[in-house]
Amino acid sequence: MEAWKKFQEENQERFLEELKALLRIPSISSSTPNKPDMLNAADLVKKYLLDAGVDNAEIFPTAGHPVVYGEKIVDVNKPTVLVYGHYDVQPVDPIELWHTDPFEPTVKEDGNIYGRGTADDKGQFFMHVKAFEILSKTDSIPLNVKFIFEGEEEIGSPHLKPFLQEHKDLLKADVVLVSDTSMQSLENPSIDAGVRGLAYLQVEITGPNRDLHSGVYGGAVANPINILAKLIAGMHDENNHITIPGFYDDVDELSAEERKAINKADFDQAEYTKDLGVGDIYGEKGYTTVERTGIRPTMDVNGIWGGFMGEGAKTVLPSKAFAKISFRLVPHQSNEKITEMVVAYLKEKAPASVEIKVTPDHGGDPYVTPIDSVEYLAAQKAIEATFGKRPIPIRGGGSIPITALFESVLGCSTVLLGFGLDSDNLHSPNEKYGLKNFYKGIETIPYFHKYYAELKK
Amino acid sequence: MEAWKKFQEENQERFLEELKALLRIPSISSSTPNKPDMLNAADLVKKYLLDAGVDNAEIFPTAGHPVVYGEKIVDVNKPTVLVYGHYDVQPVDPIELWHTDPFEPTVKEDGNIYGRGTADDKGQFFMHVKAFEILSKTDSIPLNVKFIFEGEEEIGSPHLKPFLQEHKDLLKADVVLVSDTSMQSLENPSIDAGVRGLAYLQVEITGPNRDLHSGVYGGAVANPINILAKLIAGMHDENNHITIPGFYDDVDELSAEERKAINKADFDQAEYTKDLGVGDIYGEKGYTTVERTGIRPTMDVNGIWGGFMGEGAKTVLPSKAFAKISFRLVPHQSNEKITEMVVAYLKEKAPASVEIKVTPDHGGDPYVTPIDSVEYLAAQKAIEATFGKRPIPIRGGGSIPITALFESVLGCSTVLLGFGLDSDNLHSPNEKYGLKNFYKGIETIPYFHKYYAELKK
Repeated sequence: MEAWKKFQEENQERFLEELKALLRIPSISSSTPNKPDMLNAADLVKKYLLDAGVDNAEIFPTAGHPVVYGEKIVDVNKPTVLVYGHYDVQPVDPIELWHTDPFEPTVKEDGNIYGRGTADDKGQFFMHVKAFEILSKTDSIPLNVKFIFEGEEEIGSPHLKPFLQEHKDLLKADVVLVSDTSMQSLENPSIDAGVRGLAYLQVEITGPNRDLHSGVYGGAVANPINILAKLIAGMHDENNHITIPGFYDDVDELSAEERKAINKADFDQAEYTKDLGVGDIYGEKGYTTVERTGIRPTMDVNGIWGGFMGEGAKTVLPSKAFAKISFRLVPHQSNEKITEMVVAYLKEKAPASVEIKVTPDHGGDPYVTPIDSVEYLAAQKAIEATFGKRPIPIRGGGSIPITALFESVLGCSTVLLGFGLDSDNLHSPNEKYGLKNFYKGIETIPYFHKYYAELKK
Repeated sequence: MEAWKKFQEENQERFLEELKALLRIPSISSSTPNKPDMLNAADLVKKYLLDAGVDNAEIFPTAGHPVVYGEKIVDVNKPTVLVYGHYDVQPVDPIELWHTDPFEPTVKEDGNIYGRGTADDKGQFFMHVKAFEILSKTDSIPLNVKFIFEGEEEIGSPHLKPFLQEHKDLLKADVVLVSDTSMQSLENPSIDAGVRGLAYLQVEITGPNRDLHSGVYGGAVANPINILAKLIAGMHDENNHITIPGFYDDVDELSAEERKAINKADFDQAEYTKDLGVGDIYGEKGYTTVERTGIRPTMDVNGIWGGFMGEGAKTVLPSKAFAKISFRLVPHQSNEKITEMVVAYLKEKAPASVEIKVTPDHGGDPYVTPIDSVEYLAAQKAIEATFGKRPIPIRGGGSIPITALFESVLGCSTVLLGFGLDSDNLHSPNEKYGLKNFYKGIETIPYFHKYYAELKK
């Protein structure tokens, strides 16, 4: 273990420079003009894997962006860890709110590196490549390691399922290891023992066949924005419960004890509201903030638009209005079932005066890692080894739809060993990642492999 | 009268060409880059007035776009008609929905001229210039005529009030004559005996101080789009009555008899819904479509935006959401009072978890022209003379805020002698104006002056 530490200390400046090179590639998976950048990013990831010491690495084309694969088989009788990550990133708009160029990674005095993808997920998956390099260069790889880095996570991994199905044997593993989530803090580390699922839909309301003058027609013709607002508002009652019939049917209601355990997570409401600049918290009645983001399903409008959005006044009764609406799901809700429910509900509630079109986008089912599983215990021991403190299990609010996919296609459990922070501005301007988090992650991951190899025996 | 007809017939092709030249100038008052076009349009209007035979014409600068003024005083003891119009036009977006260039007026086989401003209001106010030319060139001007054409109607006439106040003596008149509304049809002509008022507001909801990841924070932090939808939806009850306390207090409730008269207006629901491409009409319970657009106040969202509006999915909990909301008002509601009411209501209803900013934009009070007034009777007789049919009085749904302004500053009643049709796509792509309407208007207006001079004596 001294050798690991020494190797890391001697090389960590290089590690950071290599990460920066990867961050400079604007690999925005949802943007067609950035397609060449996707290929460049995949090439660089493959190179990094080879440099780190894998036996072989390959770029697999898919119907969308390619998957980068690499592996090191030390002994077929030893357990195998499949490391998953994604080299694609979110778009950068609104660009004007960034303080630095999103694709020119910038280390600031606050100890963070700023740029798109620093935490989500380049900065995090790259820790695994470097952790593996440490194991490899110190001749201490304790088990077989496979790597799969995809380029479509931010658009819902549309081609991952067929890829997994097609390469089931190649990807065979005992556990999937992912760093694409956050922990509470470096002082009070935590492990995501579960993540929420996601159902995402776009709603299009069409009223009249053309934009109308709101004076001439207003009051007599359904205004698609008014109707859309009504449909959205109608999905919550006065206690912020979701009103869609059957929505909570499959929700795993936790026992008083389980809720008590969950509420042990660090949470300072004054600090939370101050950080966000809000006057108060807001959510479902009867649940704490930790519960609202961890064990309860939610409905958020992620985008809305329609009518005149320019400067000044235009008295238009628009023909169309749009919204992107998503639901975070908890065990044992199913993305597919909830999507069907929402579509049926919206179609039923929309008045005959408008047409409604609901298009489901990507989604994923919720996932839980049992805290008595080998993979959870290995992750717990690894964190204890480097942080000197036992991590607490929390339920993350975000969604890692691929967890359910790995389970169903490869029959593999996933452990979510995230080193980011909730304040990392994921999907937002000024995304960042703490250098301490980056280095601590590289330090911790080898222990995971070590303990997993020991416990799995 | 034969002389009028003859002059019009001999010159009407030129009239159309002159109108086209005016329509080619993109005088969009809300667009800063079009400022030079505003000046060009004002210059051309002044030239047209002089050509038509006014004694003098002048361009008055204002703090915004200029006002064009012209006058012909035949006898100070005779009555004076002040003709009002506006040479500015609405923006053209969404430009992709236009079938022809909005600023290259195009006469189609359907007998309409297409282009921005054809009906609102260049095509309509220009009829007055040509009608005056007919009177002037046939030596039959029966009274004094003054013209005021402003360039800021589409942005709420912000500088008209100070202009009227400053030039009270110059503008002194007995009645204001405006063609900026529509009639039912050429077969069943009508006169707007009243127009609705308008209160227009922009609402800005701010939740967290930055865009958040909806997975990490969703369910615990107020989403400004969810809140905005709730505020909008909450302004209507299940009968589509407006819920704002006091909103209907000043509404002039019509007698059963008055309602019966109003419902005599042409209205074919099947044709109406077919034209608009909607499955059904939609509006306030207990009122007909004619009433809903004529004598009842309404609330329409004219625009809404917030969060991610691009292609695909982004799981953002946005920092801000915006809406433009307008209310059509009826006698005797006051724009100012309603605006105050709405602002207070929204501020009270918004939860402490968000900040709300409400910015009133332009507005105007409702207006009624009594159907036993001299100006109404003169308009009625003029239409009877050229259409061979008595027009029916209707309550227009749109707003002509300047009517209340002329009343309060100049002490003048207004008569709304509109020749457009509701199907003219005002403020929409493919705005049009019927050539028949244009020529019929030019034919009718001289009769208004003649009858007004006779009845006013």
